[in-house]
Amino acid sequence: MSERARHHTFPEETIGEQAYRLVAELYPLCRSITGDGVRQSLDILARRIPLAVREVPSGTPVFDWTVPQEWNIRDAYVRNSRGEKVIDFRQSNLHVLNYSTPVRATMPLAELKKHLFTLPGQPDLIPYKTSYYRRNWGFCLSHRQLQSLEDGDYEVVIDATLADGYLTYGEVYLPGETEDEILLSCHICHPSLCNDNLSGVSVLTLLAEQLAAAPRRHSYRFLFIPGTIGAITWLAQHAAAVSRIHHGLVVSGIGDRGGLTYKKSRQGNATVDRAVAYLLGRSGLRHEIVDFTPYGYDERQYCSPGFNLPVGRLSRTPFGSYPEYHTSADNLDFVTPVALGEAWATLRDILQLLDGDGKFINLNPYCEPQLGKRGLYDSIGDNELAMLWVLNLSDGEHSLLDIAERSGVEFGALREAAELLCRHALLKRLDG
Amino acid sequence: MSERARHHTFPEETIGEQAYRLVAELYPLCRSITGDGVRQSLDILARRIPLAVREVPSGTPVFDWTVPQEWNIRDAYVRNSRGEKVIDFRQSNLHVLNYSTPVRATMPLAELKKHLFTLPGQPDLIPYKTSYYRRNWGFCLSHRQLQSLEDGDYEVVIDATLADGYLTYGEVYLPGETEDEILLSCHICHPSLCNDNLSGVSVLTLLAEQLAAAPRRHSYRFLFIPGTIGAITWLAQHAAAVSRIHHGLVVSGIGDRGGLTYKKSRQGNATVDRAVAYLLGRSGLRHEIVDFTPYGYDERQYCSPGFNLPVGRLSRTPFGSYPEYHTSADNLDFVTPVALGEAWATLRDILQLLDGDGKFINLNPYCEPQLGKRGLYDSIGDNELAMLWVLNLSDGEHSLLDIAERSGVEFGALREAAELLCRHALLKRLDG
Amino acid sequence: MSERARHHTFPEETIGEQAYRLVAELYPLCRSITGDGVRQSLDILARRIPLAVREVPSGTPVFDWTVPQEWNIRDAYVRNSRGEKVIDFRQSNLHVLNYSTPVRATMPLAELKKHLFTLPGQPDLIPYKTSYYRRNWGFCLSHRQLQSLEDGDYEVVIDATLADGYLTYGEVYLPGETEDEILLSCHICHPSLCNDNLSGVSVLTLLAEQLAAAPRRHSYRFLFIPGTIGAITWLAQHAAAVSRIHHGLVVSGIGDRGGLTYKKSRQGNATVDRAVAYLLGRSGLRHEIVDFTPYGYDERQYCSPGFNLPVGRLSRTPFGSYPEYHTSADNLDFVTPVALGEAWATLRDILQLLDGDGKFINLNPYCEPQLGKRGLYDSIGDNELAMLWVLNLSDGEHSLLDIAERSGVEFGALREAAELLCRHALLKRLDG
Repeated sequence: MSERARHHTFPEETIGEQAYRLVAELYPLCRSITGDGVRQSLDILARRIPLAVREVPSGTPVFDWTVPQEWNIRDAYVRNSRGEKVIDFRQSNLHVLNYSTPVRATMPLAELKKHLFTLPGQPDLIPYKTSYYRRNWGFCLSHRQLQSLEDGDYEVVIDATLADGYLTYGEVYLPGETEDEILLSCHICHPSLCNDNLSGVSVLTLLAEQLAAAPRRHSYRFLFIPGTIGAITWLAQHAAAVSRIHHGLVVSGIGDRGGLTYKKSRQGNATVDRAVAYLLGRSGLRHEIVDFTPYGYDERQYCSPGFNLPVGRLSRTPFGSYPEYHTSADNLDFVTPVALGEAWATLRDILQLLDGDGKFINLNPYCEPQLGKRGLYDSIGDNELAMLWVLNLSDGEHSLLDIAERSGVEFGALREAAELLCRHALLKRLDG
Repeated sequence: MSERARHHTFPEETIGEQAYRLVAELYPLCRSITGDGVRQSLDILARRIPLAVREVPSGTPVFDWTVPQEWNIRDAYVRNSRGEKVIDFRQSNLHVLNYSTPVRATMPLAELKKHLFTLPGQPDLIPYKTSYYRRNWGFCLSHRQLQSLEDGDYEVVIDATLADGYLTYGEVYLPGETEDEILLSCHICHPSLCNDNLSGVSVLTLLAEQLAAAPRRHSYRFLFIPGTIGAITWLAQHAAAVSRIHHGLVVSGIGDRGGLTYKKSRQGNATVDRAVAYLLGRSGLRHEIVDFTPYGYDERQYCSPGFNLPVGRLSRTPFGSYPEYHTSADNLDFVTPVALGEAWATLRDILQLLDGDGKFINLNPYCEPQLGKRGLYDSIGDNELAMLWVLNLSDGEHSLLDIAERSGVEFGALREAAELLCRHALLKRLDG
Repeated sequence: MSERARHHTFPEETIGEQAYRLVAELYPLCRSITGDGVRQSLDILARRIPLAVREVPSGTPVFDWTVPQEWNIRDAYVRNSRGEKVIDFRQSNLHVLNYSTPVRATMPLAELKKHLFTLPGQPDLIPYKTSYYRRNWGFCLSHRQLQSLEDGDYEVVIDATLADGYLTYGEVYLPGETEDEILLSCHICHPSLCNDNLSGVSVLTLLAEQLAAAPRRHSYRFLFIPGTIGAITWLAQHAAAVSRIHHGLVVSGIGDRGGLTYKKSRQGNATVDRAVAYLLGRSGLRHEIVDFTPYGYDERQYCSPGFNLPVGRLSRTPFGSYPEYHTSADNLDFVTPVALGEAWATLRDILQLLDGDGKFINLNPYCEPQLGKRGLYDSIGDNELAMLWVLNLSDGEHSLLDIAERSGVEFGALREAAELLCRHALLKRLDG
């Protein structure tokens, strides 16, 4: 644990700095899709947010899949004939093929090499590799390290267990005025990788912390889950309740120095898709909006055709398109407090818009109401146009976001106008 | 009354010149939202068109509003201590804050100044100002005039009455073959302003005169009404009948030297919106099509969400965006016979298109009819394509305007083809 | 009959060369909308394809039309006073106004000239002219030939008959797994014209030959019919069955050196329209996609509003826009084996796409199925993305073509993925 992460409250810290510190604290743990690495990570999050930790037994059927066995690892190394550890899990948990079966054997280099994974094109980096659904063991190392291995016999130890146990995930549910939910989801199954995994975990933790402290119209559900199997497990066990999810975002890879990338939901024109496009378009931030594809993070599951939830994904540089992806270079130097803070603020703005959006009905729809006799002409000055737009389009068909898109008037001004008109009984919220 | 306006018929005049003469005749009258200025103006129109003058009593509730008291003014002036009239209503009726309460008092300049309105940025112009819904009195004058006022006591007289009476408006109803209506509306509440108000009044008067003399498929309703409260009053008293309005136009600010501006209805794609865009696009005239906003003239009321009528607005330079707007510079030099005549012709073309448009049904929809045996191949030459288009798309879904937009064939040619095919019992009009 | 056409099988020939040979074999025959020229042409086609020859009696009412009399011509010429044949049907069947009434007379040049047709702007070419629905006789000749005629009496002979008989057309029906049909239609009524008429006839013949030899999901119907009246006759007699036509193409003018032109169906966005646009867009071929108009070949009838069938048209240079159109220059030099072969291959690809397209349903729609346990991750490598797209969008709403358009993944890869997934019971075809 680094010096930075030792303490828990730094009131002078920015949100970005707090998020970075949380990344740093989680970084050393060896996570996988199951096991104690996930539990320890969730324990750290639970210090800040009302996290419920759920455990689903191995063997539980979840749609076309089965909850896998639990993997726990204590140590792993490869020792040469001189007794030197040439590969050592304690130096980097990426050294072990994630979810490796246990092994304890001595073998010549040629035999060992069948279980060694490197990146010849990036010879200084350790790759991150997994073997979840095919039993295997192995070590990952830099290509230079591989090239330096001499012939001879090697002692190989992976002191791990693969046994029935549980799949563990964390959930924060923040009830709001309505049961309509906004879902925020991130994966928590990667070991020492900062951007791919921990950036999303830390930003969502700070977001949950902030939302828990303020009044909310929507209910919010945060999921901290192992990738793929975690989303499938949660969906399988909550299939009946997903209809409450009105908007959702998968958040991952949000801490690097690249611009923001929003990947639309499968629906393509869901409110969340339009809200993010609206806000990013006015944000002045570098960003790109890309269409849905069925490849990616857990939006694959949320947007499977049986669910087709309005869930998009917010990232920075798309996964797979930066050279540090799934290597030891996705480390604490690769993510920055500024990037994490900006991501947090963008998500806060998105949630604020989604929470405030809705349809209203003009209670005086025949001709304009006489604003002057209610003092509304003078009281608001520049906002007269916002009021006129809200009154004109609040016919039960148009949401505030619709009105913002059509009118060019800022969403915030429209929302204030709607609240003012509601107070004067000229408007009524239709939903929630 | 000017030399030009003294006579009533000038058979050699163009329509534009006639419209200009009517503007000139109406110019000197002091109109407001109620009162004799409106009555006198309507009397002038009634010499040309079958105008019904309606009177609605003060105090009548109309939706969220109440019909206001009637304002009548006989004289108004400010006299300095030497007895000289330094502001004189008889020189320009803009000098009086429109709808001023009566006043008769003597006061020092400092006190008087609280009731004087000028335009420091346009120091030679008298502003046009009103105070309809807040009781006040005042004078409007050029900023230079204000600067020339010496200290001392001033005699202030506004010999006006504000008392229960009527809201007066004019209505022309021209019954056609069907009860489906086309609405043409202009405001008639501004005093000596030529473009903002009188240009629309005069062009619509000449249009009503022309339409009254010819056969009509649609019925036409012309409204000459005080702005805002007049539209609200008419709508409140005819709410059940507005469903007959199939197309409508507010006409105002149509006499200046700028290009034409069409503001779409709230529906955005109503037939009138498409018809105007179609015709302006082929007209060779400078023009602009702009989206609906809930700010403007009486389209605000016609397009309020409870009515949502297909009513657009035809103007030239948009109100508020020319420096002469609501000043004494919106005078007889600001409008031209050419601009008025071109506006009239454009409106005539729009109404002709709307009147002739409609859906037809091909009575021989399976394969093409044999045009040759009916002599239709030879008789029409170039119009064969128009016939083929009308036959092909007259499936009950497509109007002639739809066909014109899709085919690129001129609306007039399609209309002639439709009439020819109707005469040969190959086509039948579906509506009206 | 040319040297090329004398033999029937040239196994080393390309498809384009075979098509060209068929054009050459059909070229000399004198076709019209009825009569033995059509019968002889169909006989030639019947050597390669299972052609049913249909005969509909003259006088049969077909919608607004009547099946016309049968026209047969044995000889025609104009002889000058020296007994020389100055116009001779045996040199070119274009010399006779097609569907001429018989004539046998002697007349001065001035009288004869009323029945002579030339192209002064293309003085070396014989025009192709018809007079189907107005009784007339005449000769077509080059303008130079006309200018060389001396004054004097001419013997005029058209040894033809116009009498009750039959309208003849050919039909190939290839039943498939479903009764859903793909219609391919060409006109067969032009005499010695290669591009306009024979190019479509030959390419469709070779296409029918190939389709007859392979398994088919759809049923295919090929029509070889006289233009206009043939399509009207077929539609009149099969009106109840046209609902089986799911896709269709009129093929004509497909053998010249110009790029391909696809004219959309009246529907404009039918599957055939989208399939052709999709394939041409990826073909690397020069091409143009044009909107439907009610003028053209038999798509006029198939797309009449009562039928509104999804039938487009594939051509090369649009009819009427090349100078050889409807003249003696539309000869064997004007069409090329390469152009015919490329047209054939394009049509084959279109039909393959239409035949393979369809909607599928993901049988495991909640979350992704576990492809790994079925060996599908490894077995297909690059096609993983195709599988994910097919699974994700196979919700009963999206066809493979929809998925191809949205995903950018090649249709062929999607189709293979769909077949693989069907074999693993993860997907099921919905239609057919």
